[in-house]
This record gives sequence, C-alpha cells and structure tokens, in this order.
Amino acid sequence: MRLYSMPSSGNSYKVRLLAALTGQSLDRVDCEYGSAALQQAKDQGALPFGKLPALRLDDGTTLAESNAILCYLGEGTAYWPPSRTLRAQMLGWMFWEQYNHEPVIAVRQALVSYPHRAADATPDRLADLLDRGHALLSVMEDHLATQDWLVGDAASLADICLYAYTHSAGARGGFDMNRFPAVRGWLARVAALPGHVTIDG
Amino acid sequence: MRLYSMPSSGNSYKVRLLAALTGQSLDRVDCEYGSAALQQAKDQGALPFGKLPALRLDDGTTLAESNAILCYLGEGTAYWPPSRTLRAQMLGWMFWEQYNHEPVIAVRQALVSYPHRAADATPDRLADLLDRGHALLSVMEDHLATQDWLVGDAASLADICLYAYTHSAGARGGFDMNRFPAVRGWLARVAALPGHVTIDG
Repeated sequence: MRLYSMPSSGNSYKVRLLAALTGQSLDRVDCEYGSAALQQAKDQGALPFGKLPALRLDDGTTLAESNAILCYLGEGTAYWPPSRTLRAQMLGWMFWEQYNHEPVIAVRQALVSYPHRAADATPDRLADLLDRGHALLSVMEDHLATQDWLVGDAASLADICLYAYTHSAGARGGFDMNRFPAVRGWLARVAALPGHVTIDG
Repeated sequence: MRLYSMPSSGNSYKVRLLAALTGQSLDRVDCEYGSAALQQAKDQGALPFGKLPALRLDDGTTLAESNAILCYLGEGTAYWPPSRTLRAQMLGWMFWEQYNHEPVIAVRQALVSYPHRAADATPDRLADLLDRGHALLSVMEDHLATQDWLVGDAASLADICLYAYTHSAGARGGFDMNRFPAVRGWLARVAALPGHVTIDG
C-alpha cells in the first residue's frame, strides 16, 4: 500500500500513527505543501477530492479522507471495538473531529505555523479560534475526566484520530493546555501505546 | 429506539430516511429550532455534543453525529457494502460530506431559509457559498457521470448521506441544478428506492 502523506499534517500523521501501532507497512510518498511531489500526485490523479492523505491499495483503488483510511486499516485490529454500539460511538467522535474539532484546533495551528496562511491569520480570527478551541477541548476534558479512552475501556481509532491535532494544540496552536489535565493525561496514554511514533517519525 | 430529530434539518432527515428504507421503527421526538422540546432535550442531557440528531438506544446509550447513527442503523443492511474497500470508500464520501459539502451546501440553505440566520446571510457570503457549492456539486457530477451510485453498484449509506442536503440544494439553497444532470439522475434514483420518504414525511 502506498500512502500519499503531508509530513506536517495531523490528518496524514493519524494514518502513519495507526499503521505503526498495528504493524502495517506503508510505502510512503511525502507531499509537503508546495512541493513538486504534491503537484505530481495531483497531476497523476492520485488524490481523490484533491486532498491528502490518500491511500493507494495494491489493486489500484485509492482511498480518500483520513478517517475513512483509519477505518480501512483499523477494521479487525485491537483499535476496532467489538460491539456495534461502541463502533458507532467511535465514529461519532471521528465525525465530530472532522466537523467541529479540526476546523478550529487544526486550522489555528495552520494559520500560526504555515507562512502561506499568514495573510488569513488576523488577530480577530486567531482570538475567535482560541475561544472556540478551548470550548472544544472542554468537551474532551469533561469526557476524559471519568474514563481513560474516548470509547469503552481501550484505545480505539477515535483516540488515534483526536490525538493527531490535540497533541500539538498547545505548542503549535497556542491553546492553553494547562486548563485540561484530563486531556493531558489521555495524550500521555496515547503516546505510551506500544509502537507509537511522533509526527516527525 | 428514540430519535431526537430536527424536522427541517437534512442531518436529521438522513436518519429518518435510512430507518424508513430499512424498515426500522424509531420513536421520534421532534425538536425544531427554538422549540420547547429542543430546550428540554438539552436540559435533560439527551444530546451529546449538544447536536441533533441523537439516537437513544433501548439500553440508555445515546449516539451522536448523523453519519455515525447511519452506520449504527445501516450495519448489516443492504446499504452496508460487503467489502472492506467499498466500506472505506463509502465512509470517505461521508467524511467528505461533513467536512466539505455540509458546511457549504447545507449552510447556504440555512442562511437563506432560517429567519434566525438572516443576519449572517450577507451578499458576499451567499455569493462565496454559491461558487463553492457549485464546485462541490461538480465533484459529485464527475463521479456520477459514470456510475449510478456513489460506491460500488448499489445504494449505500453514502447515497443516503449525500442525498439529504443535495436534494434540496436547488429549491432551498439556490444552487443551479441544471448544470448537474448526473446528480439529478442520481437524486431521482434515490427518491425511487422502495420505502423512500420525503423530508416532510
């Protein structure tokens, strides 16, 4: 399998992380923003929806959307809950991540750290994203105050998915993680999973 | 099972539609915007993430996120593809719907039709959403030009999911559906599925 991956992106990182945690080998094509490799992948039609990451299977099928790729690689592993109810709760967190969490927590990190996004990083927008991000992190804090993992009693794809942009929310996004001790405890548990790799790994 | 549902919302409609198509009975609590029923559901803690729809199972568990609820109700039915690759492609469309399609196609419909959103419906914003919506509909048009259903050779949860806000994009959102004949043909196929109900049904 070939993963078209943006090294700096949490959406790509979550796929690399799950592959590492589950011992699945991926042939990796790095496509950083503005790179010739990214343009080449687009020109080749290798990116459905024009987005990264994308996973090309050995039969030539290409899968899009980071969380759908997580489901493909995760189905049947220890990160795939055993009951239909738990799977639906897991997917609930993953859809929440894409609809609510990513457009705020990830976007503020992008605005702050990518030079090509600097023009969009107005003080008003950064302040708004900061407030909304703290509210989203509070949702996770309340949930994780009483349980170790987002769903059930073991790490699932939901934890891998939410970890990707939450682990860098403080250092890269400027969110005040001191307010969220349960989230920090959960981040440490994910980082301690056997096989864990960092975003630079 | 009890479905907390907003009658005017496509996200709630998609769940009612799948239940009808698969013959699953739901005890329905209508929570329209601004209603006492919605406030009561929030006060009771019945809405995870504070969002509609929400599905309360008979064991008291509540599921959030429309597309996760679709997976719960759809697993094992005719709308659940038989292979892991097809399921991942289906989920890819569903994540694309929540990340790309809904925030444009649904939001323009809301801005135009909900009085409480009128203040946000500036001409610049409506024009921007129109252009972006046409680009998103073009993605669907290109895909549906060569196949009857979004994934594989049968209707799946992806079609139910995307139908919810696409079927009303013209009349309610002002998008020019004449540009998208393949999408219109697909809308007609979904509307002809046995058991189909309208959003007002």
